[in-house]
Amino acid sequence: MIGVYDSGYGGLSVLRELRAALPTHDFVYLGDSGRAPYGGRDTDTVLDFAEQCVERLFEEDCRIVVVACHTVSCVALRHLQRRYAVDPDGPRRILGVTIPAAEAAVSVSLGHIGVIGTKRTITSSTFVMEVEKLGPHKVSGCAAPLLAPIVEEGWEGSDIARLAVQRYVDQFEEIDTLLLACTHYPLLLDAFLSAVGEGVRVLDPSSFVAERLVDWLKRHPGYTGPATGNLRILCTGDPSVFREHGHRFLGAPLPPVQHVAEEQGRLALRDRVQVIKGQVVR
Amino acid sequence: MIGVYDSGYGGLSVLRELRAALPTHDFVYLGDSGRAPYGGRDTDTVLDFAEQCVERLFEEDCRIVVVACHTVSCVALRHLQRRYAVDPDGPRRILGVTIPAAEAAVSVSLGHIGVIGTKRTITSSTFVMEVEKLGPHKVSGCAAPLLAPIVEEGWEGSDIARLAVQRYVDQFEEIDTLLLACTHYPLLLDAFLSAVGEGVRVLDPSSFVAERLVDWLKRHPGYTGPATGNLRILCTGDPSVFREHGHRFLGAPLPPVQHVAEEQGRLALRDRVQVIKGQVVR
Repeated sequence: MIGVYDSGYGGLSVLRELRAALPTHDFVYLGDSGRAPYGGRDTDTVLDFAEQCVERLFEEDCRIVVVACHTVSCVALRHLQRRYAVDPDGPRRILGVTIPAAEAAVSVSLGHIGVIGTKRTITSSTFVMEVEKLGPHKVSGCAAPLLAPIVEEGWEGSDIARLAVQRYVDQFEEIDTLLLACTHYPLLLDAFLSAVGEGVRVLDPSSFVAERLVDWLKRHPGYTGPATGNLRILCTGDPSVFREHGHRFLGAPLPPVQHVAEEQGRLALRDRVQVIKGQVVR
Repeated sequence: MIGVYDSGYGGLSVLRELRAALPTHDFVYLGDSGRAPYGGRDTDTVLDFAEQCVERLFEEDCRIVVVACHTVSCVALRHLQRRYAVDPDGPRRILGVTIPAAEAAVSVSLGHIGVIGTKRTITSSTFVMEVEKLGPHKVSGCAAPLLAPIVEEGWEGSDIARLAVQRYVDQFEEIDTLLLACTHYPLLLDAFLSAVGEGVRVLDPSSFVAERLVDWLKRHPGYTGPATGNLRILCTGDPSVFREHGHRFLGAPLPPVQHVAEEQGRLALRDRVQVIKGQVVR
């Protein structure tokens, strides 16, 4: 069983590539849609949420967890890897998207990479550090806090999306490659392609993440058991909303989505979503 | 000393009206900009943050705290009022914006009020419940998760803002009054005015909030001491960014902004902002 974790729907665009590359494997996807977006949150909160989500996926019998979210990969991946390195039940591994994204960008760039993502992804400079290990490429970053909310609204085909993408892209100077470092942005690909104009390559790293996982599984055969291409989906927000929105990201209808909610510091399976009206007193 | 609490910059548009109405009073403003937006957060997180912020304002010698944020007022006000009802050092009070906003809307509406705000403000239905207590008016709600981020970006004068406001406003049918139930929206007033067209009144409740506070202070003279019109500003995010952005909301330059950060469950004054680069391991 392979776990895929994202702060919301976005990672389904990564899951799509992973399932295409590994069609006979079983996947469990956990979208923390009830607590998204992560991009503006403080670091300790991101670490807390990431621990809860990864632990839930381990409880679902995943021995590998792919952190599809760039914000979590940039900030919390090393923490997660150290914290969950040792397990008495056998080996387990947490993989991120930042290194595959950096490798993909360096492999195609002529020298100047633009990277666009959430505020926390950009201010962490983690992508810049990973590129520095690989080559002499220059990296320019742009935080685009409006783009994920635009996609969450389902407005990715609107003039609002087109204008916002253009405004962010105009902040780059003379890049040759633009890396989409947020799992929401592949849905804005058309807007990005027309905003950058000719001569700039727009790079969605999802397929490279899938390639790296295929390669990794070949070298580490003990991490997955017998499988039939099954898919389970969990989310912390409203499962019916998740199922409806998720379709656009996965590119296919979703199976029934199960609700998980925070309960004494861990994510527990819930039968139904609690809708709270009016004032809350605790 | 009067405390004003908001999830970010937005409440400065309320503070502006409060200071105009009460020019000789001292104010402390606390903007939780480091953890904004609240609109999509789960209820317990909103309650945690609200407790920390209100406690910080009490520590600053405020005996009255105005919760300028509609999300917090709609969800957490009653909780805060109960939790902090009793203080051995004397009386203290927490006031919100939902009831003044409902009173203002009912006083001008011909029968059908539209209310626009964050997701949590709208799904709480608290505004609807308050209007129901006052008259037979119909209320239609619209959650507008993109508008606060657009204002946070400083893009309120752009075509992006105009198109987004239009798209949300088009969801209302035959309202006669549109209540702006988010402290960011007064900066989008021009966009709202042209979006609703003639015959619909756009209502920013800030001046009504100020009127109610003036009235309340007359009836409760023991809550403020001698004052000179002083203003202090605290925020959880980057104080230099807050000072720069805040100008647009307050309509005047801000005094130096002090940084506060979460430390063992409370907000403590900090000398400088810690900028974290790369992976975080705790």
